[in-house]
Amino acid sequence: MNIVILAAGMGKRMHSALPKVLHPLAGKPLLSHVIDTARTLSPTRLVVVIGHGGDAVRAAVGAPDVQFALQEQQLGTGHALAQALPLLDPSVPTLVLYGDVPLTRASTLRRLTGAAGENAYGILTVTLDDPTGYGRIVRGATGEVVRIVEQKDADDDERLIDEINTGIVVTPTAPLAGWLDALKNDNAQGEYYLTDVVESAIAAGHAVVTAQPDAEWETLGVNSKQQLAVLERVYQRNAADTLLAGGVTLADPARFDLRGSISCGRDVFIDVNCVFEGTVTIGDNVHIGPNCVIRDAEIGAGTRVDAYTHIESASVGAKAVLGPYARLRPGAKLADEVHVGNFVEVKNANIGLGSKANHLSYVGDADIGAGVNIGAGTITCNYDGANKHRTVIEDHVFVGSDTQLVAPVRVGRGVTIAAGTTVWKDVPADTLALNEKTQIAKTGYVRPVKKKS
Amino acid sequence: MNIVILAAGMGKRMHSALPKVLHPLAGKPLLSHVIDTARTLSPTRLVVVIGHGGDAVRAAVGAPDVQFALQEQQLGTGHALAQALPLLDPSVPTLVLYGDVPLTRASTLRRLTGAAGENAYGILTVTLDDPTGYGRIVRGATGEVVRIVEQKDADDDERLIDEINTGIVVTPTAPLAGWLDALKNDNAQGEYYLTDVVESAIAAGHAVVTAQPDAEWETLGVNSKQQLAVLERVYQRNAADTLLAGGVTLADPARFDLRGSISCGRDVFIDVNCVFEGTVTIGDNVHIGPNCVIRDAEIGAGTRVDAYTHIESASVGAKAVLGPYARLRPGAKLADEVHVGNFVEVKNANIGLGSKANHLSYVGDADIGAGVNIGAGTITCNYDGANKHRTVIEDHVFVGSDTQLVAPVRVGRGVTIAAGTTVWKDVPADTLALNEKTQIAKTGYVRPVKKKS
Amino acid sequence: MNIVILAAGMGKRMHSALPKVLHPLAGKPLLSHVIDTARTLSPTRLVVVIGHGGDAVRAAVGAPDVQFALQEQQLGTGHALAQALPLLDPSVPTLVLYGDVPLTRASTLRRLTGAAGENAYGILTVTLDDPTGYGRIVRGATGEVVRIVEQKDADDDERLIDEINTGIVVTPTAPLAGWLDALKNDNAQGEYYLTDVVESAIAAGHAVVTAQPDAEWETLGVNSKQQLAVLERVYQRNAADTLLAGGVTLADPARFDLRGSISCGRDVFIDVNCVFEGTVTIGDNVHIGPNCVIRDAEIGAGTRVDAYTHIESASVGAKAVLGPYARLRPGAKLADEVHVGNFVEVKNANIGLGSKANHLSYVGDADIGAGVNIGAGTITCNYDGANKHRTVIEDHVFVGSDTQLVAPVRVGRGVTIAAGTTVWKDVPADTLALNEKTQIAKTGYVRPVKKKS
Repeated sequence: MNIVILAAGMGKRMHSALPKVLHPLAGKPLLSHVIDTARTLSPTRLVVVIGHGGDAVRAAVGAPDVQFALQEQQLGTGHALAQALPLLDPSVPTLVLYGDVPLTRASTLRRLTGAAGENAYGILTVTLDDPTGYGRIVRGATGEVVRIVEQKDADDDERLIDEINTGIVVTPTAPLAGWLDALKNDNAQGEYYLTDVVESAIAAGHAVVTAQPDAEWETLGVNSKQQLAVLERVYQRNAADTLLAGGVTLADPARFDLRGSISCGRDVFIDVNCVFEGTVTIGDNVHIGPNCVIRDAEIGAGTRVDAYTHIESASVGAKAVLGPYARLRPGAKLADEVHVGNFVEVKNANIGLGSKANHLSYVGDADIGAGVNIGAGTITCNYDGANKHRTVIEDHVFVGSDTQLVAPVRVGRGVTIAAGTTVWKDVPADTLALNEKTQIAKTGYVRPVKKKS
Repeated sequence: MNIVILAAGMGKRMHSALPKVLHPLAGKPLLSHVIDTARTLSPTRLVVVIGHGGDAVRAAVGAPDVQFALQEQQLGTGHALAQALPLLDPSVPTLVLYGDVPLTRASTLRRLTGAAGENAYGILTVTLDDPTGYGRIVRGATGEVVRIVEQKDADDDERLIDEINTGIVVTPTAPLAGWLDALKNDNAQGEYYLTDVVESAIAAGHAVVTAQPDAEWETLGVNSKQQLAVLERVYQRNAADTLLAGGVTLADPARFDLRGSISCGRDVFIDVNCVFEGTVTIGDNVHIGPNCVIRDAEIGAGTRVDAYTHIESASVGAKAVLGPYARLRPGAKLADEVHVGNFVEVKNANIGLGSKANHLSYVGDADIGAGVNIGAGTITCNYDGANKHRTVIEDHVFVGSDTQLVAPVRVGRGVTIAAGTTVWKDVPADTLALNEKTQIAKTGYVRPVKKKS
Repeated sequence: MNIVILAAGMGKRMHSALPKVLHPLAGKPLLSHVIDTARTLSPTRLVVVIGHGGDAVRAAVGAPDVQFALQEQQLGTGHALAQALPLLDPSVPTLVLYGDVPLTRASTLRRLTGAAGENAYGILTVTLDDPTGYGRIVRGATGEVVRIVEQKDADDDERLIDEINTGIVVTPTAPLAGWLDALKNDNAQGEYYLTDVVESAIAAGHAVVTAQPDAEWETLGVNSKQQLAVLERVYQRNAADTLLAGGVTLADPARFDLRGSISCGRDVFIDVNCVFEGTVTIGDNVHIGPNCVIRDAEIGAGTRVDAYTHIESASVGAKAVLGPYARLRPGAKLADEVHVGNFVEVKNANIGLGSKANHLSYVGDADIGAGVNIGAGTITCNYDGANKHRTVIEDHVFVGSDTQLVAPVRVGRGVTIAAGTTVWKDVPADTLALNEKTQIAKTGYVRPVKKKS
């Protein structure tokens, strides 16, 4: 089968500099949703017809299995399909999809192509409560499709028909060139409509078959941000339902967002208003608190992620405790039973088994051993204004509060660092590191007085 | 036209010390919504009838163009309107609105007053699926309004009428005094109902016309916190739809709150669960992450605002990067390309082009030049216990981590401050500022042992 | 009355290691909801029939007033009830509930038991728009219940019946043993169905009465995470409505979660997306900002809780100001007018009248007096690696920024601590505490140059 995806439209009502088909739904361009679905059908040829913003579209979705046809002027869907013809294999049928109709399911398309077989003309139709504005499927006495009549051309009886044309069709390819050539543009927009091809197909003696999707939203297109928002919610509701069906507990399926893929073990709880992006893997018995943002992460079994935790490109072991207000940045690798607490940022750092950084710290470009306690207010001074350097803290070190570790620096195993210490030289194992200080109490100090303003 | 807004009710079911009409909807008192709508109709007189909590109402909405009439006892809507009569211009019609019906659109009111013209009595009506409890609009053979019949007085046929009286009316003013005088309070509540005036109008030979709103919610009143919550969501959904129509991408229109006004450039993305208050201006290509709270702010083009960022009375240049967990407090003014990162608070401070404060810092009462790097844990010690002082950091300074800047203090251009430095004296340009320290490693230190508890 | 709660099912579709009836709804096991409702009916015997995961169920809901009956094999609801028979008082009726039907209201159950009295067989029924799949209530000419017919056995007329059996019944207890004995398992599942008992009751001449709940969701059971999510939202919507009816303002009732109990004073405002857990008491005129998480807390009148504040097992006085991004951990006790600001963590600490810790601090295991100002970056070093120690700060102390207080330590009344001071010895009252430091400015320092990577 050939698949042609029409993706040349401007999307004026999107009010955007971005071509319509590149607007993201669930973090991925509309067109990419269609391409990904198309791929599951294993087409012999996969052609995207581009036009407005064509270069951007090419750049965004280009891939070895995708060919592009350029529709320089937008003269209608029939004209668009004609641009793809030279790239198609005439010996197999052609399925026509739309870059702005992102959520049609592969199972629906298989139903359509299965119904059409090699030689019939197949139309995906849907029954609407209010079909106003859509092309109606007119059927004959035996139920056979006679024609598609547009709203403006429909008589009173035809307007009562609630089965409408979605625009998604599958057609024999060999005769398509002739049928498209025969299209006329004697309509208000002066465009060549693919819809009208069905007449040629019938005239040529091809059977016309129909199939219907399981859900109406499979056929909805995006022409505005309102419609985009509607389909975003459909997508997210479906994503939530998939997780629920798999046994994940979602505190509120209406407050769950997935922009990528998520894999969850058993007995995972996800609280309200979490956002997942990229590829996220969550182990058994993980509890994720409210308002977390988690992107490209692995989280081990039994780990607890508290409210407002922000994770990006990081991995977390089992039985760890994160947050609230913990931030793991790219390259954070936490072993089992690590605790990262409130107002702590970890970046490009390994933290060993059972180590803890529970309060107000910055751990960046560091290798932290096992059993280390990072006191509140600890900062790895990893940047000298030009380059980044690593801090190494060996096992069982106790880092006193408000310590600065001026990298590159190594703190030996079992060291204790006094509170408020600046460490710029390596510290031998099992010693107590400190800056010498005096503490004095001056008498006679008079506090400033509030000035009149 | 005169406009009278009835706002004397107590709102017992609100269970509040605040007069009902002052309860906020989208951050603004219910009554202010009505007054603002009234103003767009350019009334010659704008009168608010106050009663319960009248002083608070006066204080909240008082303005040169608003007159107040006091209804000392709440004896019904007819009685309330009578209190306003002395303040009205008898030569023009009077539109009667309600301080607890906040979302009637000006276009609807114009339709009503346009239909009524100078001499007709106009009633805003609405058709309900379930009209039970409301006064029905009884029409004669030619469709003319004959009377309004209350639920309890309606016969079986009348109860089938689904067009009901909203209470919003426009009336010729000159005869109004007589009509109000003629009202009787022989009803269960012993009140004088404005509804009954229509009978006098008809009897006096005035035409009675009707108009309908576009949406039912335009006529909904607030008598309880449930009803307030319903209208809050209507308001927010409308606000979201307005943004969507303008091309803004909202990840979830149902999780968007606007309490004030927002202006967005092209290709703005707003993630889930953000709250906007006051006056917010957002430039082109701004990306706002989930769970942000933004009040009275300007945000320049191409800026990225990450999750959990809190902004109040601040301005941000173009191509800046904020958050996650960044807080801009009043008086924060960020130039282009400034980065303010996690757990950083900026208050009453200017930050110059391209400067960065990415981690765990407090920048208050400060003037930061361009190209400055503020290390993690930096604190401007702006308060001496009595007064606030400024910290000045000139261009291209590198502030080492965990530096305290004891204001007033000036750090010259190009200075480098060592990590963990307390700076209480001005630092000359191009020097390295530090506190002298020793770092020692004591052997023989024995860690405390956990006491039995 | 006896109450038997059937709670032996596995809940395969939950895909969980946890027995179905222990899955939490609003933070409490499904079964506990049923038990709590049952208790309000003051049963003489309260029996839970356990099976799958029975030990876990016992452990979770065990209480002096609850008896357990073990159903070793799950052979149907009739068989389950039979296991409880030996524990029942035969002289009073028995109400049968389900551990996975959590939201039936006590008022509904009272209506049912009231209708049945001592000797009738009572069935809770509900009328559904789509009764497909449920057992229909077949009534005779005078409206009397004739039998219950299952979907598969129903004829065309019976399938039109929209009144269905919920499974909740009340039955005379003395004859129950005989009726249960008479049950047959000649059905597809080979189970003994409690539903069939009604036939014996009718045959024995008992009247069969019905009652209906006020809401359909009262009869919904949980067999999957989707159904759990639906009931979670029903529960939360009800909780929100209860608060609204009491006068609380909720910015969005659909974004409110309560897992426990909450008590609010007058004029409380709760912004979007807050989560309340445990027992929470909120005083008059409290304002709670968006995205707060509050667990087991008391918050005094007039306090303002800003966005992203996280409170657990803490108490807050009147007119306090918290957040944004404030965290109160267990044992935080804040007096009136205390301010705890952004990125500040308070744990097991008393903070006196009007004291402030507004920025980036950790206050743990401390006693802070009145009128204390805790500068930004202050850290109580409460942990020596083995034990926790207390920090005492007396009234009117000014703690300079970035101070470390190495506990145990006491700072006397009226002390001023210079910025950046490590305090490890007690400080006498009214002195200025500091570490002696020099500040130098080295010339000739050359910044590192960025290495090519």
